[in-house]
Amino acid sequence: MQQEPLQDLLSGIRRSVITNDSGTIATYIPQLGSVDPAKFGMHVATVDGDDFGIGDNQERFSIQSITKVLLLTRAKLEIGSELNKRVGVEPSGDPFNSLIQLEYERGVPRNPMINAGAIVVCDLLVELLDDPKGGYLSFVRKLSGCETIDFDRSVAESEASCGFRNRSIINLMKSFGNIRSDIEEVLDLYFHACSIAMSCQELARTFSLFANAGALVGSGEKILSKSRTKRINAVMQTCGLYDEAGEFAFRVGLPAKSGVGGGIAAVHPGHYAVAVWSPRLNDKGNPAAGFAALELLTDQTGSSIF
Amino acid sequence: MQQEPLQDLLSGIRRSVITNDSGTIATYIPQLGSVDPAKFGMHVATVDGDDFGIGDNQERFSIQSITKVLLLTRAKLEIGSELNKRVGVEPSGDPFNSLIQLEYERGVPRNPMINAGAIVVCDLLVELLDDPKGGYLSFVRKLSGCETIDFDRSVAESEASCGFRNRSIINLMKSFGNIRSDIEEVLDLYFHACSIAMSCQELARTFSLFANAGALVGSGEKILSKSRTKRINAVMQTCGLYDEAGEFAFRVGLPAKSGVGGGIAAVHPGHYAVAVWSPRLNDKGNPAAGFAALELLTDQTGSSIF
Amino acid sequence: MQQEPLQDLLSGIRRSVITNDSGTIATYIPQLGSVDPAKFGMHVATVDGDDFGIGDNQERFSIQSITKVLLLTRAKLEIGSELNKRVGVEPSGDPFNSLIQLEYERGVPRNPMINAGAIVVCDLLVELLDDPKGGYLSFVRKLSGCETIDFDRSVAESEASCGFRNRSIINLMKSFGNIRSDIEEVLDLYFHACSIAMSCQELARTFSLFANAGALVGSGEKILSKSRTKRINAVMQTCGLYDEAGEFAFRVGLPAKSGVGGGIAAVHPGHYAVAVWSPRLNDKGNPAAGFAALELLTDQTGSSIF
Amino acid sequence: MQQEPLQDLLSGIRRSVITNDSGTIATYIPQLGSVDPAKFGMHVATVDGDDFGIGDNQERFSIQSITKVLLLTRAKLEIGSELNKRVGVEPSGDPFNSLIQLEYERGVPRNPMINAGAIVVCDLLVELLDDPKGGYLSFVRKLSGCETIDFDRSVAESEASCGFRNRSIINLMKSFGNIRSDIEEVLDLYFHACSIAMSCQELARTFSLFANAGALVGSGEKILSKSRTKRINAVMQTCGLYDEAGEFAFRVGLPAKSGVGGGIAAVHPGHYAVAVWSPRLNDKGNPAAGFAALELLTDQTGSSIF
Repeated sequence: MQQEPLQDLLSGIRRSVITNDSGTIATYIPQLGSVDPAKFGMHVATVDGDDFGIGDNQERFSIQSITKVLLLTRAKLEIGSELNKRVGVEPSGDPFNSLIQLEYERGVPRNPMINAGAIVVCDLLVELLDDPKGGYLSFVRKLSGCETIDFDRSVAESEASCGFRNRSIINLMKSFGNIRSDIEEVLDLYFHACSIAMSCQELARTFSLFANAGALVGSGEKILSKSRTKRINAVMQTCGLYDEAGEFAFRVGLPAKSGVGGGIAAVHPGHYAVAVWSPRLNDKGNPAAGFAALELLTDQTGSSIF
Repeated sequence: MQQEPLQDLLSGIRRSVITNDSGTIATYIPQLGSVDPAKFGMHVATVDGDDFGIGDNQERFSIQSITKVLLLTRAKLEIGSELNKRVGVEPSGDPFNSLIQLEYERGVPRNPMINAGAIVVCDLLVELLDDPKGGYLSFVRKLSGCETIDFDRSVAESEASCGFRNRSIINLMKSFGNIRSDIEEVLDLYFHACSIAMSCQELARTFSLFANAGALVGSGEKILSKSRTKRINAVMQTCGLYDEAGEFAFRVGLPAKSGVGGGIAAVHPGHYAVAVWSPRLNDKGNPAAGFAALELLTDQTGSSIF
Repeated sequence: MQQEPLQDLLSGIRRSVITNDSGTIATYIPQLGSVDPAKFGMHVATVDGDDFGIGDNQERFSIQSITKVLLLTRAKLEIGSELNKRVGVEPSGDPFNSLIQLEYERGVPRNPMINAGAIVVCDLLVELLDDPKGGYLSFVRKLSGCETIDFDRSVAESEASCGFRNRSIINLMKSFGNIRSDIEEVLDLYFHACSIAMSCQELARTFSLFANAGALVGSGEKILSKSRTKRINAVMQTCGLYDEAGEFAFRVGLPAKSGVGGGIAAVHPGHYAVAVWSPRLNDKGNPAAGFAALELLTDQTGSSIF
Repeated sequence: MQQEPLQDLLSGIRRSVITNDSGTIATYIPQLGSVDPAKFGMHVATVDGDDFGIGDNQERFSIQSITKVLLLTRAKLEIGSELNKRVGVEPSGDPFNSLIQLEYERGVPRNPMINAGAIVVCDLLVELLDDPKGGYLSFVRKLSGCETIDFDRSVAESEASCGFRNRSIINLMKSFGNIRSDIEEVLDLYFHACSIAMSCQELARTFSLFANAGALVGSGEKILSKSRTKRINAVMQTCGLYDEAGEFAFRVGLPAKSGVGGGIAAVHPGHYAVAVWSPRLNDKGNPAAGFAALELLTDQTGSSIF
């Protein structure tokens, strides 16, 4: 990708999508509901270390479910086949927080991109790490190269006070023996991990790891094996956009993960990572303008994996 | 890909997987049950027109559900958004012939890679084509470059005589208004389309279209737009291996479609198509040795899309 | 029950409920849709041979699903435990024509009061009787004491031409091996059995068998054992009103069966049978005014089984 | 019923069923697992004030889910239509602790005889009563006429420490807004209510209320209206034996409620209540020998409601 044209391309994409005011902002906790719905940021970070951003690309927002990819990555540093017994890799075919499949499949979540699966990953991290929250935050800071990234404790506390659905999920898995640690400790890690605030620039740089065969762009430090990186990309591809993974593959064609804070992080293996932020969500819970922006990006650059 | 090493690689893969005698051959119709379970063929066809094959790569077998990709391709030549209203693009999360989601979602199949979705595609073709069976066969012959490819009428008749599950599916969709033509005529096309016999070589050449941005390798004739080709690859990626699409993405990392006749056809966009044949099926209904062979191929050539 | 007061009671009930014009008439076949929605008939037949009727109690209408009780009764004359292996006795918890439970429970219907269960009963009768349709009609005539009762062939033909949901159900059961005879022959019996036209008077007299421990009122001829009669009443009680069996037990408190033709037949064991006809159906598919009339009857006579 | 023959009948029933050692005792909490599996008690209490018992009919056991009928009764003293909005009266068609229907039906339990429904009833009692546990215990003591009946606190504490499934259920309902009070307070009432220990004699006397049109046998004090009594009996009939309500209606034919402590309490309206205790449970979670004993009782006395 060349610098000038890509910067122009991002400007054009922003102009196309910022007039899109469809969708509604998440309001189930006050902190998400108070964000300006008109925000729009987009940032590309290439494996060559180049960066291109537009709009509110340096403003931090709540990454929410995007954290699930990083939780999975952190867990993969510690454990291998153990993880596969406790959480699957298949798409769910049901909304992201459904208990139905979880009950039919006896407490083993379909994949680590839905709430139940990420909670099992948190259970593993609580078991393995001395300081689960601190250790996870250090890991995210290291991947992003930014030491000021932090939890938003008011977001985490709000989630904890209204997270009845997640408490239902973790208790159901505990009843099937698929949660080992204390429920409150596991949820505390999960709610904090979701509360992390990052900008599009920081997210794109963090996800460039997955475009770079598991090595940090810049230092070249190897974090993940090529094989594990490929597997994380595959899970994002098939399961990363809730009940809209197929539509996203169809229209965008990149592995990606979205969050109710309005962010999407996507990866073109071997080339670049991109993050986009737009707070209004479509009826499947995915950011509407961000989805459209990524479709324009891959159409105009011909950079789908398909 | 270089010729010598790839030929050697295929030989090595064959040696690795032919000792694998796990899984069982499909026996629900006599014609499938009488195949030698030890058969193994594999064939790669590149976008440069190179071919590499091993084992029983020139022996024809029943392509079964692999036909669904070609039915979808044929339908896309005729119709656009119409198709999207009548069949989705999301993974199903349930076994390939389940009526459960179909009932909850009021007769609109999840995607065109499951039986219900392929039957809706057949309904569209019956409505659009003067001679649906003849027209479809001509299309497959054209893509493959082989005029001797044909239906196996005894297979089609056997399927028709025992296809109660498919009759249940089509009647359910008809009750929701999502089938317009005569049920028997639609099923006749569907059962014939599934009965087509092709070799790995013929399948790989046929699927090289999807690796070549929609143009026939050799003549360069444009069959599909680049955008539609990308969408077909995306649907194969997320929905092509029944309830094992995630596992396949995780381990192999290519868009692909399997069939109960033991075949799998896969695509590396921009590079090659590959077909593999091994009649024994694992407990998810996918060819066991063929799955393993494709995993070795993408591992050893580093050619996953992820 | 005394004659004078009961006749007065029925008059009062009729006055109370005929102003109720909530609900809508079934229109999926033309013959049902052309009935006058304002019709209302009610008839009580006691085990002592007394009869009380009001309104359109002598006008015939399509008994539809009420036939399922009589199909089950006819089958019980022939077979015992065989039936229990092929159809259950538990309430379904899902709408009456759902395929979902049928697929989860591998083709064995929940009970003989839902379509799937009645179709299995028809399959048994086709296997056991030389002339299934003629034999069944003779049986209904005998129970009712009326030789002019007949199939409405235009209703049966209409049902056959639009019965896609029932065809879906029977093919699904056939795929699980729970249908033995030819599908068309079984459906032909089923659609004819549903098409029978009877009046409230004829239905009440027919169902007085179940109030009279299995013996015909009048002749005293024993048709069913006391134990089998009790079991049929129990199945009506728990499964007879589709997804509203609990509400009906709660408000009326009698074993009963409803049909989309607007009829309900109910039984007070040891005392009387009652039939009511009102064509408008509530949102659960049960006759609205008829339901209300039965609630008034059991409240005012104190004749609930509870 | 005459005294001598009924006492002899109970002796005969006991001899028939005590050799039945099928089924397994509940062991999910230690207190239930330590009970002698060979225990068998049975007690009949008539509306005339007569009592007949056999075996271990005076030994107390954990009433568990039988408490749900008494919770419902207590709630009905306070509230009317409010209850109907928050819990239904239809059979569930799924195992007693399933979350699946609860999610599809947006947090409104099918009926008050399943865990979810009884928990909603507890939520109402917590809201309405100053001392919910004390008030409920007083109510049970009053109905039974026995002031020594009490909670088994070690049972309640064991349930609380392993009740992950119930915590999953209550959090799911809370997420849908169908729980108003504090989760821990509601569960504390629920677990204590289930822990109450009573003998067959005490249970039969308590349930004789439901056979006596809502009045206490003996004093004649009116507790419930006739109409509410009828409704409680109707709910027991259609929903009282988990996923075996139909089979129980079919074979026994009385409104009843079972518990995993091995008890069943049943009612013949207008005549008698009966309680039976046998700790071994069949594969549906109902007491095996107790079920058989009740079938013999209604067969031999001809006292089914059908």
